[in-house]
Amino acid sequence: MTEDVRWLSDAEQRAWRAYLRANRMLWSALDQQLQRDSGLPHAYYLILVALSECPDRTSTMSELATLAGTSPSALSHAVGRLEAQGWVSRCRNTGNARIVLATLTDEGFAALAGAAPGHVGEVRRMIFDRLGPEQVAQLAEICSAIAGEDPAWP
Amino acid sequence: MTEDVRWLSDAEQRAWRAYLRANRMLWSALDQQLQRDSGLPHAYYLILVALSECPDRTSTMSELATLAGTSPSALSHAVGRLEAQGWVSRCRNTGNARIVLATLTDEGFAALAGAAPGHVGEVRRMIFDRLGPEQVAQLAEICSAIAGEDPAWP
Repeated sequence: MTEDVRWLSDAEQRAWRAYLRANRMLWSALDQQLQRDSGLPHAYYLILVALSECPDRTSTMSELATLAGTSPSALSHAVGRLEAQGWVSRCRNTGNARIVLATLTDEGFAALAGAAPGHVGEVRRMIFDRLGPEQVAQLAEICSAIAGEDPAWP
Repeated sequence: MTEDVRWLSDAEQRAWRAYLRANRMLWSALDQQLQRDSGLPHAYYLILVALSECPDRTSTMSELATLAGTSPSALSHAVGRLEAQGWVSRCRNTGNARIVLATLTDEGFAALAGAAPGHVGEVRRMIFDRLGPEQVAQLAEICSAIAGEDPAWP
């Protein structure tokens, strides 16, 4: 251990621990709701959302990994499952066969639209029903700062 | 889709999107730092931390899954790896053979102590260097509310 470690202060430790607990509870609740009501894990839902927001609902697999926040290997596994379900299709770029494109199918879009209300309800129940309007604005600013963005970012 | 869905307001949408982005960037940074400097994924680090805080540095596997925020199957895989590395040991409860106990070894504790300064430095760089003291307090309150706790919780 080096001598010059700047350990967290009590206030920082409190915030960090609370963040870890909130994150754990939130992820677990979102996952359970989506699994129960729509039969898909939260990580898969995020992949469908990311694709739905791409031009032509299509993305390269490497870009999609960044957008959905998963590792390439986890994404590849998930997209394989989503493809088997008919919600995503994959094809090789005609110009560069190393590039694989993933597309959200109409069926996948319908599945996403069907899952969205329940998911949004759970996000609201776990977060926004528990915060005042000022805290919602504070949360946006804090998270924008952590993400290294201008707070006015949409 | 039901008619009475309470979709997120613009302010809520902004906060939720920022949260997702911050979370993604934070997890990726913490994972990269730990992998690079200590050769272990963040999820494994959280398991070692959870065990280090249990009485006798020992926990049942089911309790440990809750503490470390992982699924039982992911935990079982991770603890298998940590056991192979000599950082965790497992044994069956003498009274109830169905209960498996995991213990952090001295070597595991030393590994955790070695990894902690770099990890704390990354937590500081990604979060606390980017927030003012008021925001640190706001983050603790917001996260305590999401976790359903009294804000005075340590």
